[in-house]
Amino acid sequence: MFETAELGRKISKDEYRKVEPELRTELIMLQQQLREADFPVLVLFSGVDGAGKGATVNLLNEWMDPRWMETRAYGELSDEERDRPPFWRYWRDLPPRGTVGLFLSAWYSRPLLERVYGTIDDGAFHDRLDQILDFEKLLADDGALILKFWMHLGRKAQHHRLKVLENDPLQSWRVTPTDWEHYEKYDSFVEVAEHLIMRTSQPFAPWKIVEGEDARYRSLTVASIIRDAIRRRMGERRAGADVGLAADLDEGMMADALKSARRRTVLDGLDMSKSVSADDYDDRLPEAQARLNTLYRATRDSKRSMVLVFEGWDAAGKGGVIRRMTAAMDARNYQVIPIAAPTDEEHARNYLWRFWRHLGRAGRVTIYDRSWYGRVLVERVEAFATEAEWRRAYTEINDFERQLTGAGIIICKFWMHITAEEQLARFERRKETPFKAWKLTDEDWRNREKWAEYEQAVHEMVERTSTVIAPWHLIEANSKKYARLKAIDIVCDTLEARLEN
Amino acid sequence: MFETAELGRKISKDEYRKVEPELRTELIMLQQQLREADFPVLVLFSGVDGAGKGATVNLLNEWMDPRWMETRAYGELSDEERDRPPFWRYWRDLPPRGTVGLFLSAWYSRPLLERVYGTIDDGAFHDRLDQILDFEKLLADDGALILKFWMHLGRKAQHHRLKVLENDPLQSWRVTPTDWEHYEKYDSFVEVAEHLIMRTSQPFAPWKIVEGEDARYRSLTVASIIRDAIRRRMGERRAGADVGLAADLDEGMMADALKSARRRTVLDGLDMSKSVSADDYDDRLPEAQARLNTLYRATRDSKRSMVLVFEGWDAAGKGGVIRRMTAAMDARNYQVIPIAAPTDEEHARNYLWRFWRHLGRAGRVTIYDRSWYGRVLVERVEAFATEAEWRRAYTEINDFERQLTGAGIIICKFWMHITAEEQLARFERRKETPFKAWKLTDEDWRNREKWAEYEQAVHEMVERTSTVIAPWHLIEANSKKYARLKAIDIVCDTLEARLEN
Repeated sequence: MFETAELGRKISKDEYRKVEPELRTELIMLQQQLREADFPVLVLFSGVDGAGKGATVNLLNEWMDPRWMETRAYGELSDEERDRPPFWRYWRDLPPRGTVGLFLSAWYSRPLLERVYGTIDDGAFHDRLDQILDFEKLLADDGALILKFWMHLGRKAQHHRLKVLENDPLQSWRVTPTDWEHYEKYDSFVEVAEHLIMRTSQPFAPWKIVEGEDARYRSLTVASIIRDAIRRRMGERRAGADVGLAADLDEGMMADALKSARRRTVLDGLDMSKSVSADDYDDRLPEAQARLNTLYRATRDSKRSMVLVFEGWDAAGKGGVIRRMTAAMDARNYQVIPIAAPTDEEHARNYLWRFWRHLGRAGRVTIYDRSWYGRVLVERVEAFATEAEWRRAYTEINDFERQLTGAGIIICKFWMHITAEEQLARFERRKETPFKAWKLTDEDWRNREKWAEYEQAVHEMVERTSTVIAPWHLIEANSKKYARLKAIDIVCDTLEARLEN
Repeated sequence: MFETAELGRKISKDEYRKVEPELRTELIMLQQQLREADFPVLVLFSGVDGAGKGATVNLLNEWMDPRWMETRAYGELSDEERDRPPFWRYWRDLPPRGTVGLFLSAWYSRPLLERVYGTIDDGAFHDRLDQILDFEKLLADDGALILKFWMHLGRKAQHHRLKVLENDPLQSWRVTPTDWEHYEKYDSFVEVAEHLIMRTSQPFAPWKIVEGEDARYRSLTVASIIRDAIRRRMGERRAGADVGLAADLDEGMMADALKSARRRTVLDGLDMSKSVSADDYDDRLPEAQARLNTLYRATRDSKRSMVLVFEGWDAAGKGGVIRRMTAAMDARNYQVIPIAAPTDEEHARNYLWRFWRHLGRAGRVTIYDRSWYGRVLVERVEAFATEAEWRRAYTEINDFERQLTGAGIIICKFWMHITAEEQLARFERRKETPFKAWKLTDEDWRNREKWAEYEQAVHEMVERTSTVIAPWHLIEANSKKYARLKAIDIVCDTLEARLEN
């Protein structure tokens, strides 16, 4: 999930100076209009320490009119608060209609930290999140516009940030021993946060994950999202429209600098020159397959099932990888499910039905050559599914996969990535190779025209469905040999890790 | 909640014969139209053993065309099922679009029984219900029409029913030792069921509570609800319209017999002749107040708070009861909050904000003379709130009260009931008593015209918000003296019971 907020997005000083004055003006003017509106705006900030929560709130206070905006931060409970139900402190502070409330360390803080430090278990954690959702839903049903920002830093970036702050005499007070304590817990903090965001990102109160490393980038992003959300709400009160995690900015009104920073996707971060020599490949493939065979048998014997999911560009080499894997398995025990158009029977039911029906028994391997992710890839880009349908599919898919892993099934998901040039070269070769020409259809050529849209869809898919229990693996596949070795290694590593539990 | 399904509703044989043929014809014709529709219908049956789940399903199979309807019942898991995630068995059985699936002992059975028998705790129970909601929401989002019937019997009625079945040679096989085992657990079964229904009755998959004692009544009710729901969906696919627990029948097309049976409310069950002699009252009031004072002080000393809620007809004597109670308390420690029109500040926020703000500290008593229930009473009947607003208020109110009791607060809710004739007599007396005439307004007279609508609103309020943690107490208040004693006794009993926990 957080891969998408560790891309090193930046805005230069010059670009920032060009954009800032207009954005400030727009915000302050919107705030004036908002005063006449019949709804309040609640903006929550959570995230990794050092990712700029406080700095962003200060900036907004500087830019906007403080008479119609309140900032609330929460520490230990007061005596008065301890004497009442936990949400009383937040009810007290609800902004009236027509105003903006900024909330720091609010209702998400305690459940998050208590789960990280293990003082509550998963059941209690879910209950707390459900109570929060009830609260937010009640406010949203009544008209409140709720925006929740998760300010993110990668592990290294957080370390760096805390060090930089500490060494700055003017800023060092910002770094407390608690911050370092939290840093020690970075991995579990992020794992709990992922769970929290997945469960509480709802159409009526969506989370926006913001990369926090560059102050200019994060300031423009947060301010633009707030501006666009208020403006959209003032224009039309679309009830129930899922705003989603990523597609929250109106591209039309986005500053160019921000636009290009935000168009950067997780795929741009891949080193597509990775390859392996033919000799190396010949040595390492049998080793990798032998390792896979050992682990595969251990998995089978312990009655664990495995589900492998392959997605990727046309001609990215999915079939080739699958064949190298199944070569190390027993044909009685695995099944490859190629996903094409649904049958009549499948078409008469929910789109997930066809994937449920193919689930293997305990100890089996099910390999999906394309999968339920079609809903948020091809069906999204080609508009076979409505926006509401593919947007809610992220949650449906996460639920589905949680049911699989909950039943002990081990999931590996691969996105086989090639560059557009490499795809073109492969298409040309296919055209000229008689026994491969059948693989190439008009549709393949047409799909190339939507490359950028597919990239955005892949980016959002990773953001919303790459989870600790079922992470996405992006495979640099310009070199087929490199891709095969890497994918097999990942399956082996996953099996090894999961078999220990 | 289940008070509303223990009213002894009945349909006579003659009335039934008049209605049945047309209802059957309508159902079978609707089923034909449904075949062309792009959604499936899922009908679930749960409830108390002996309340006619199986019998109703058999009847529907007899009435409707089995080619386009499937019945699924679930017992122990098969080997095949055990090897896969728990919901796999239900995914397998999903009816295709255009058909009806009837489900017995389906996804609610195991969480319910496991919670009753204590093999799972509340946290795990909630998680299971959340998974169910995810499943139902996914299907509903995709168009499925989901109806869930809770077939109910009171404790005595269940005992009677099991006995009758057992003594009938043709039916005795229906009664298993398990049924008697469950019966032993009746109270906890019903408490868990209440929780289950409150949490999983959602606009997209509402529960309908059906009184199961009379076979003819329950058959007509279930069949009519199914008919109306399908017809409504075929007419217009209203997304997100909360169908609710009670307001599910189109009165216009309801058979007269059923209409009058269903118009019977919880208020009709009250014995309004109850009274107490003046002498008795003079003896018992001081005793009751002394008891209240003792318990009140124990509550205060143990830092527990108390919230008393008074609702009722105009002139039902709320003020009189409140004064008799506060006479037994210390004025420094209780607060009476009369609820009139909201202030500007209150009006600028969610309707519950004004009640949150008045919540007392630990150890205090807060008495609401009228309350948040105005949302589902006067605001509903006078259309001050939209239907969507007052419908979702039931859930919001239950959440609110759960937060109060969760923080250790003890809640007592009273509906002060008088007959329309008694109210008229009181109004007339007020008119003639100079120091009481101010109490009487034109509005009071207007409200009388909507008596029947208020009764329905009270009935549904009790159905949806009378919970184990915060039950409604209906007070027969034609005799003021009787009402005062009863209300004080109830507060005392409640305090006694809660202080033990």
